[in-house]
Amino acid sequence: MGEFDLIARYFTRPVRRAALGVGDDCALLAPAPGMQLAVSSDMLVQGRHFFADVDPERLGHKALAVNLSDLAACGARPLAFTLALALPRVDAPWLEAFSRGLLALADGHGCELVGGDTTQGPLNICITVFGEVPAGQALLRSGARPGDDIYVSGTLGDARLALEALQGHITLPADVLAAARLRLEQPTPRVALGQALRGVASSALDVSDGLLGDLGHILRASGTGACIDTSITTYLIAISALPISARGKFDPELLHQCTLAGGDDYELAFTAPVARRAAVAAASLASSTPVTRIGRIEAEPGLRLVDAQGQPVVQRYASFDHFAAG
Amino acid sequence: MGEFDLIARYFTRPVRRAALGVGDDCALLAPAPGMQLAVSSDMLVQGRHFFADVDPERLGHKALAVNLSDLAACGARPLAFTLALALPRVDAPWLEAFSRGLLALADGHGCELVGGDTTQGPLNICITVFGEVPAGQALLRSGARPGDDIYVSGTLGDARLALEALQGHITLPADVLAAARLRLEQPTPRVALGQALRGVASSALDVSDGLLGDLGHILRASGTGACIDTSITTYLIAISALPISARGKFDPELLHQCTLAGGDDYELAFTAPVARRAAVAAASLASSTPVTRIGRIEAEPGLRLVDAQGQPVVQRYASFDHFAAG
Repeated sequence: MGEFDLIARYFTRPVRRAALGVGDDCALLAPAPGMQLAVSSDMLVQGRHFFADVDPERLGHKALAVNLSDLAACGARPLAFTLALALPRVDAPWLEAFSRGLLALADGHGCELVGGDTTQGPLNICITVFGEVPAGQALLRSGARPGDDIYVSGTLGDARLALEALQGHITLPADVLAAARLRLEQPTPRVALGQALRGVASSALDVSDGLLGDLGHILRASGTGACIDTSITTYLIAISALPISARGKFDPELLHQCTLAGGDDYELAFTAPVARRAAVAAASLASSTPVTRIGRIEAEPGLRLVDAQGQPVVQRYASFDHFAAG
Repeated sequence: MGEFDLIARYFTRPVRRAALGVGDDCALLAPAPGMQLAVSSDMLVQGRHFFADVDPERLGHKALAVNLSDLAACGARPLAFTLALALPRVDAPWLEAFSRGLLALADGHGCELVGGDTTQGPLNICITVFGEVPAGQALLRSGARPGDDIYVSGTLGDARLALEALQGHITLPADVLAAARLRLEQPTPRVALGQALRGVASSALDVSDGLLGDLGHILRASGTGACIDTSITTYLIAISALPISARGKFDPELLHQCTLAGGDDYELAFTAPVARRAAVAAASLASSTPVTRIGRIEAEPGLRLVDAQGQPVVQRYASFDHFAAG
């Protein structure tokens, strides 16, 4: 199968929102008047971001999900995306499953595939996504102010827990592994929550490299510090829904590491003034997305961890860095 | 060096046109009122699109050039781009040279790096580029009409000639190889010509996979056929500027193959009504880009090659396809 057949068979849909879609030199997009275009690009590499034997349907989902998560973090509405794909060879069943997972998520968010590139090479998926946000209303990292509450959506740490199990570092009961693995391989971008937080959150980002490391971006961009209650964050791992007896089997240090520095969560971490607590609750409700208040922005620089009694917890958790050791 | 240091050191510039540049979850772009955004994405893979030992400064140039070439083919003005980069390791001299070549070309076209991604993996460069074109004025592949002239910009075939030499299939004099290699490794995107052809050309694309194959896209999209004079195209290779004695050393078949199906040319192929010949000449002059008339669009489907006497030439030149043999 040639490159053009491949594109036609797996990745061409009728053009909807774009003025011109797949098949010319460029796609043509026109944001509505008064709107800004939010643009983000993420690359997924085999062995680094996913295992060679990952279910291709889940991989198609995840490749777009991590990009939609960036739009969510800006409060943008998804519009369209481009897909550049390097494949070792043309593998029809793989492509069929990959495109099914990819386009199902795209359709769910009204996000149109408008172009891209396919080539032969080590498996590599590069998606660039476009969203629309009213001019001046994008959620940025730089807006956190001392006194603001800090929130995180959904659950944290399950993806890392699955990764540790898949790498053979720990053993998980089959049902726990299956649930955690779903969070690793098929994360849910918090697109509706991001839009609901426009005008409510003072800053936001998505948690991709680990909560503490990512929060650090907000603190640096905002020129603030923060205090996080780890007695709350440790319960944000989905396995906290297990009976205490089952939960007790996990090393508490492992749970801390997974929730605070696990990575691959694709939840939103955001801040909002104390006066907007009701508005945050309304945004959570409107988007059917749970949010948990985990700490507070402080004037003093640095990130402080405390336990339920407010006592300092020593921080040992470096966030995932793509070029750092580990 | 960590991912964030790497981005800060090599790829961060002061924000200019973008509302928000490198460093948040998304870049924010706002095309001017009445403008459409032209979007294109290209991925370059080591071993497929470039040799492992290629000069990184030239590689940085080429990675953006092939994307700017897509904007040129739409008649769009470059605005901004994202860069996703997979690197086997952090190699400071390589990154310095790569970013120098990349950003020099970007600056030359006022095209701003607004975001992207870096990760560890087999060397892979994925750029998505954004340009602006007045609504309804983009040059498409579908506008060619019977009787239209067919043109190509600049020279054809030199990149393939260099590739054949670098792969050891042929031997070239050192000065010829150096000149041809520059065309392979540092192509010139015809950005100014593309914009000058708005309202003049009836269809356009950029020649990346070889003239005949790429022209085929215009013919299919336009529902037409074409006749090409190969006695003209064969002289479009830059080495035609050599004395006849030097030129005579090359196999005529090789020159045909390189000019008609060489690939990696990044010239514009376009059509225009006969009545617009003066306007095409003016666009060529205004953009300081040579253009050559090489044939004519015909109603009868198919692509016919003729010699100087108008006699049919047998076509043996399949265009480069990323998943086809060879």
